[in-house]
Amino acid sequence: MSLIVVGSMAFDAIETPFGKSDKIVGGAATYIAWCASNFCKVNQISVVGGDFPQTELDALSARGVSFEGLQIKKDEKSFFWSGKYHLDMNSRDTLVTELNVLANFTPVVPESYQDCEFLMLGNLDPNVQRSVIEQLKTKPKLIVLDTMNFWMDIMLDELKKTISMVDVLMVNDSEARQLSGDYSLVRAAKKIMAMGPKYLIIKKGEHGALLFHENNVFYAPALPLEEVFDPTGAGDTFAGGFIGHLAKTNDISFENMKTAIIVGSAMASYCVEKFGTERLREISQNDIKERLNQFVQLSNFDIALV
Amino acid sequence: MSLIVVGSMAFDAIETPFGKSDKIVGGAATYIAWCASNFCKVNQISVVGGDFPQTELDALSARGVSFEGLQIKKDEKSFFWSGKYHLDMNSRDTLVTELNVLANFTPVVPESYQDCEFLMLGNLDPNVQRSVIEQLKTKPKLIVLDTMNFWMDIMLDELKKTISMVDVLMVNDSEARQLSGDYSLVRAAKKIMAMGPKYLIIKKGEHGALLFHENNVFYAPALPLEEVFDPTGAGDTFAGGFIGHLAKTNDISFENMKTAIIVGSAMASYCVEKFGTERLREISQNDIKERLNQFVQLSNFDIALV
Repeated sequence: MSLIVVGSMAFDAIETPFGKSDKIVGGAATYIAWCASNFCKVNQISVVGGDFPQTELDALSARGVSFEGLQIKKDEKSFFWSGKYHLDMNSRDTLVTELNVLANFTPVVPESYQDCEFLMLGNLDPNVQRSVIEQLKTKPKLIVLDTMNFWMDIMLDELKKTISMVDVLMVNDSEARQLSGDYSLVRAAKKIMAMGPKYLIIKKGEHGALLFHENNVFYAPALPLEEVFDPTGAGDTFAGGFIGHLAKTNDISFENMKTAIIVGSAMASYCVEKFGTERLREISQNDIKERLNQFVQLSNFDIALV
Repeated sequence: MSLIVVGSMAFDAIETPFGKSDKIVGGAATYIAWCASNFCKVNQISVVGGDFPQTELDALSARGVSFEGLQIKKDEKSFFWSGKYHLDMNSRDTLVTELNVLANFTPVVPESYQDCEFLMLGNLDPNVQRSVIEQLKTKPKLIVLDTMNFWMDIMLDELKKTISMVDVLMVNDSEARQLSGDYSLVRAAKKIMAMGPKYLIIKKGEHGALLFHENNVFYAPALPLEEVFDPTGAGDTFAGGFIGHLAKTNDISFENMKTAIIVGSAMASYCVEKFGTERLREISQNDIKERLNQFVQLSNFDIALV
């Protein structure tokens, strides 16, 4: 099945305890596209300036990513973010945010995207995310929304309106607590699902991820890594693996969502091994299979032994 | 197979955001015995004062716990600890520590315990733990050691000597970092296993537990709970479930250790539901089976779907 991905394509400059990158290609939709294109056809909706490298678009096109929904504003600059990670790699300071083309982004869904059954809304202004949902003539089979605390801080009501229209919400643990006003993640999940989404994914970084649905819960581990080189884009890559697997298999059962979260976790574990999207560009289908088998070893146990 | 459990039997007074307990029965070996006696015969080595309730010993005896290795010092008082948990339940302040009978504890292994093949050394002075190992005429099939940062702070060399003699070490994540001097848990695990133990378990509370052995790693989730009522004894209960399952099945393969960690996690998830050992006293074999099935739902996924 085809997938629409909405989100930023941008430049990042990243500083970690292991080193410093130049201005490199980043953005939620970039990571999602690199990852999801391993699994299905991707139809991108985004906006870039004239400074965004054509070679990047060509490399993604070669992987079956369509850019009919990409706006290129020749005389403007792409979104730019610069950040510095702390020693524990779990927290970071934003050094620079230049919205540039994102400041007035009005996405337009091309006619050829209308038949897509899966919609991944990467982190963006919730009004922009919602406008994409509203442009679709048929409700997709599954809408997944990623967001962050920034939007909870400055436009909670708009965000809640968008959240009420999606099937799966993805946030991290502190965002789940902020959104629900509840410290217990189990209670937080109930409150958030009452806002609309039938499924909630809570990302916990090195502690894995939780999937909630009705009274069911699934806990996906994160692969313990010797070195997390650069966490930038790990959440977007996770999202890309999750929705990519669902779109590929065209199966949105809870059981298949469990597998999809493992796929997302496996892809994210590759992403953090190098700066930016570098590692995602290198990995093969065989690498993905190998990492998935590591996850089986990591989390399967035999209850028959009890 | 029979199991020797070494550790404190004591009194606790606990304050959590949910309430306050009177002086109630606690101690590492108490929790371990309540838990492990669901799975195997337990031979206790501990020390209590004349104030320790005979009813508690009778209740444990009825579950097959032997107290031949228990010293009762009629004119002295039992070990007492009082603590207060913070709102997040992950950290606590110690309010009172009265060593009492623990101050001069010299354990003696009864002749009838000599044939035991499993040894669980609950958190105690590492010299006391080591003296039990040294009294055993035949090296047990498996020695598991639990310890804490307190001993790393005040007698690291003695602790390392004891660690070098055991098969499985159990610590929490911050203790693993302290003991190894490495932030990365994967590198920390390698350094700690180089100190002697062939297996390392890193407990991460609500984030589950990791089992390391050579280049293998297993990640056991913790059951997401709506309410953690009282975390006291959760780690000891985890230890009791882990070694109890191994002793019951008499199988120390890595695969069975995975299952044992799930058993430990399941038992710990019951422990925290009420104050002290209260919940552990109530649960039946059916409850245990039910909780284990929840763990299967929680963590099993179908890789064939990829």
